[in-house]
Amino acid sequence: MEQVKVLNTCISPFGMRVLIGLEEKGVKYEYQEEVLFNKSDLLLQMNPVYKKVPVLIHNGQPICESLIILQYIDETWDSKQFLPSKPYDRALARFWADFIDKRVFDTVIRLLKSEDKVLEEAKHDMLESFQFLEGTLKEMSAGGSLAFFSGSNFGFLDIAFIPYACWFHALETIGNFKIPFESKYPLLDAWVKKCMERDSVKKALASPDRVLEYALQMRRRSLNA
Amino acid sequence: MEQVKVLNTCISPFGMRVLIGLEEKGVKYEYQEEVLFNKSDLLLQMNPVYKKVPVLIHNGQPICESLIILQYIDETWDSKQFLPSKPYDRALARFWADFIDKRVFDTVIRLLKSEDKVLEEAKHDMLESFQFLEGTLKEMSAGGSLAFFSGSNFGFLDIAFIPYACWFHALETIGNFKIPFESKYPLLDAWVKKCMERDSVKKALASPDRVLEYALQMRRRSLNA
Repeated sequence: MEQVKVLNTCISPFGMRVLIGLEEKGVKYEYQEEVLFNKSDLLLQMNPVYKKVPVLIHNGQPICESLIILQYIDETWDSKQFLPSKPYDRALARFWADFIDKRVFDTVIRLLKSEDKVLEEAKHDMLESFQFLEGTLKEMSAGGSLAFFSGSNFGFLDIAFIPYACWFHALETIGNFKIPFESKYPLLDAWVKKCMERDSVKKALASPDRVLEYALQMRRRSLNA
Repeated sequence: MEQVKVLNTCISPFGMRVLIGLEEKGVKYEYQEEVLFNKSDLLLQMNPVYKKVPVLIHNGQPICESLIILQYIDETWDSKQFLPSKPYDRALARFWADFIDKRVFDTVIRLLKSEDKVLEEAKHDMLESFQFLEGTLKEMSAGGSLAFFSGSNFGFLDIAFIPYACWFHALETIGNFKIPFESKYPLLDAWVKKCMERDSVKKALASPDRVLEYALQMRRRSLNA
């Protein structure tokens, strides 16, 4: 009897990737919510290096780091493939997923934790990242005629990026601006809507209000530090 | 006729991974050395996002980011496999390779660019990283009875980490300390020696003196900035 357990914090975009991955593959799992300032012994034991969520525990063996977990899920349960089959397409999906971790996440954190000039720079850098992703989506989806980054299949890069959709409200509220999806990133705009129709995404994403609440707490702690 | 070209800077530990990967697979390639302060148009065109080496160009298609390139090489030329076959072992190899990029590289840069307290902290963090890797090597090599991180085969994690061996001399010289390989990391010590016997590694690694020279330049620029 297979045991699958996820240690997560519900607002984590990294954790959402794992949940979407398991839902898409139809894998049943046990869920354990972690509190960031009072981590469980199990989390500390399963991820001694980073002590962070998400962790996937499969038959007692821990796997850490969301994109590595997502590839593990893809290789372990092969009902459908998240990564494309051609090496070059796989490299592109991995490159842009890594870009999201390096560039998009960085701008999110900078925007949420800062004020004035640093906040404005973070907004600028975030929109630049979205511009890159709009271009990538255009190339990968045959000019927008296919719905997803992976073409007609909802795949690795889609799963890597869509969790940020429930963070947009917090970013716009705290940054006091509107991300110009309709005017500047029409393909990303349509892509988000298409992804949000999926049961896996609906189940995994936190509510934008809950994320805003968390982001405001994080911001207060950071600005008062 | 297949065209394989590598854009690199000879002291880059990331670039060395690509060279070792190609040598291990027996792939012939053209090499282009890049100068960091005068990048070629080809580099800017092939890696418009980060504008960094290494880039692998295969039949005109660019692949960027060294661990992604290494997986691409592994999937494209399948004479022997760098990543193990079991999903859990693959996840572990990816996790520790990512750890090297996140933790080891970070401590290297901090050590080389700083003085006094920050430099001492970087040394401490580096030795902590090596402690983690010694423990990982022990687990993965059956207590040290097998030579490599991947067991008896020289594989993904070996290729990801061994380029740092030619940086140790610069780290020790600038940090004014000796990394206690023999007393504290005996398995890593034996592992480095075993890796250095390989032709691919001999060909790809820069000379420790050349790395030291580069590191001292980098340090001067950073401390004078």
